[in-house]
Amino acid sequence: MARQNPGSKKRVTSYDVARVAGVSQSAVSRAFRPGLSVSDKTRTKVMKAAKKLGYKPNAIARMLITQRSGMVAVIISSISNLVYPELLSRVTDQLSARGVRVLLFTLDHSDQLEELLEQVWTFQVDGVIALTAHFDHRDIAQFEEHNIPVVLYNRQVPDHPVNTVCVDHSQGIRQLIDLLVENGNKRFIVLSGPPDSDVANERRRIALEHLAEHGFADVPVLYGDFSYQSGKDCFAEWMQDHGAPDAVVCSNDTMAIGCIDQARGTHGIDVPEQMSVVGFDGMYAAFWTGYELTTVRQPVNQMAKAAVDILMERIENPDAPPEKRVLAGTLIRGKSARA
Amino acid sequence: MARQNPGSKKRVTSYDVARVAGVSQSAVSRAFRPGLSVSDKTRTKVMKAAKKLGYKPNAIARMLITQRSGMVAVIISSISNLVYPELLSRVTDQLSARGVRVLLFTLDHSDQLEELLEQVWTFQVDGVIALTAHFDHRDIAQFEEHNIPVVLYNRQVPDHPVNTVCVDHSQGIRQLIDLLVENGNKRFIVLSGPPDSDVANERRRIALEHLAEHGFADVPVLYGDFSYQSGKDCFAEWMQDHGAPDAVVCSNDTMAIGCIDQARGTHGIDVPEQMSVVGFDGMYAAFWTGYELTTVRQPVNQMAKAAVDILMERIENPDAPPEKRVLAGTLIRGKSARA
Repeated sequence: MARQNPGSKKRVTSYDVARVAGVSQSAVSRAFRPGLSVSDKTRTKVMKAAKKLGYKPNAIARMLITQRSGMVAVIISSISNLVYPELLSRVTDQLSARGVRVLLFTLDHSDQLEELLEQVWTFQVDGVIALTAHFDHRDIAQFEEHNIPVVLYNRQVPDHPVNTVCVDHSQGIRQLIDLLVENGNKRFIVLSGPPDSDVANERRRIALEHLAEHGFADVPVLYGDFSYQSGKDCFAEWMQDHGAPDAVVCSNDTMAIGCIDQARGTHGIDVPEQMSVVGFDGMYAAFWTGYELTTVRQPVNQMAKAAVDILMERIENPDAPPEKRVLAGTLIRGKSARA
Repeated sequence: MARQNPGSKKRVTSYDVARVAGVSQSAVSRAFRPGLSVSDKTRTKVMKAAKKLGYKPNAIARMLITQRSGMVAVIISSISNLVYPELLSRVTDQLSARGVRVLLFTLDHSDQLEELLEQVWTFQVDGVIALTAHFDHRDIAQFEEHNIPVVLYNRQVPDHPVNTVCVDHSQGIRQLIDLLVENGNKRFIVLSGPPDSDVANERRRIALEHLAEHGFADVPVLYGDFSYQSGKDCFAEWMQDHGAPDAVVCSNDTMAIGCIDQARGTHGIDVPEQMSVVGFDGMYAAFWTGYELTTVRQPVNQMAKAAVDILMERIENPDAPPEKRVLAGTLIRGKSARA
């Protein structure tokens, strides 16, 4: 194998540990993978023998024996969307707790996806969690061909069952809209994320539908890219030809913060007294007292755990059917919407 | 090997590609590792043959042949310090461009370092970039024993040469202090990061030294943990027994933003008219118009590239001596300090 401790004479193998522990080699192999089932009694025997012999499982040897790499690919993009760092951190913690490492892939443009997937196959990861990325049914079919389970975060694939963990966008956005309507807002605009984003499209669709249910049809939509600057730019563009609306429904917190800064800084609008702005995500900066957004907080811890649970189950049992878990967000009654 | 394309009958090996391309197997192996040197002519021949045969390099096979895993461990913590997501993204891009993947390790508490390093040895990464983590000379000695090169970010190890990429803290902080002194500030306080952080200690030491050179000795120091909340809490604590100072020198942008929010929101202090606040890092949110911090921007792109360059050189040539690169930051004359 590639490297050994310089001090070691002959490498201690899992077979040596098995002999001393009086268990099968397979039991040793399983005992060193926290995600796999092995009785506490067997694990104790194995660990005692391993310690005695100075055994350290070697990742390559383990890969050859278990046909597992002990790695999960995590695909992420839009690092400027500040909800993802927190999510990446939680997913990494959840996988670490199961003895699995994160192989990180960043995707700046969707046209890099094919090349990225080639790398995923090459590194023979045990599974994939896609925090951000647009997958179509052909992409998902490739995962099926390679027998690599995948879990998507906050997105689905039309007409194709796939493992996914979603925040309940519908429940969350309806609560935000209800709050705005109850407080007497009548003139709305929507600042949406980009039309090539599944998440943006879903959030916009739900907002417009629920506004229409309240009798507010044909609400104007402006399109940004989820970034702070695009929140500023969209609102500035609106103000060129219109007066301030009563309320701005933003597709995420980062755009909401941009909108608030533009409204306060350039147009002298008092948020929330003269205009309400709501976001979505509940990222760290949403709670800063300079903003204190009215928003919906994604249950990031629970969603990260659910994504990892679903994935580990599929790694253990590849025949398990695709599963969708939807977790409710929490309405945060902040200070960016008039109460 | 663990997985093969279901359609493939017999696996195409690097030897098959070498035969068809008319080059050595070693040349094929090198051609698929963008970090390694191979002539353009050879690379073209190899790629043509590989495409013809449908060859896909297999990570495990490649590890056994090249004794390289094609992976670099990146150690990160304090995800709430918003400069790190950007840095992680740039480091990942730089490694990707060299065909190397990031194996991500998160470190919440320094007492987890030993366990983390065990994992690093197990996965036989080719090198390590530590974006955040306190390493002492014993930790560095372990890397040397395992022949795994390591590059530290913004930190050094006392009395032990080590590869490191640092922003020029001294130059940056001196510029900030000079600016504050020129503009007539006389009563200073320092909001420092925690005393167990090398970066915090260096930034605080430089600030106090340079303030003393300007004739301001015994400047009070309050200790936070680099977080937004600790910036708020430190400033609130100061205000319990004192009036507002002229200027607050913060160890990072996140604490500076917390300090500004506390000053404006709770104490009704006009920043910058009544009090100047400076940060360090130049993270995204520092530029939001709600804050527009006066700060020093770390050259994140160049620092990420330098860290990866140093590491790849040591992977190629393990005998290269430890190297330190120091890059100058950029003074940002924002609106949080009186001009």
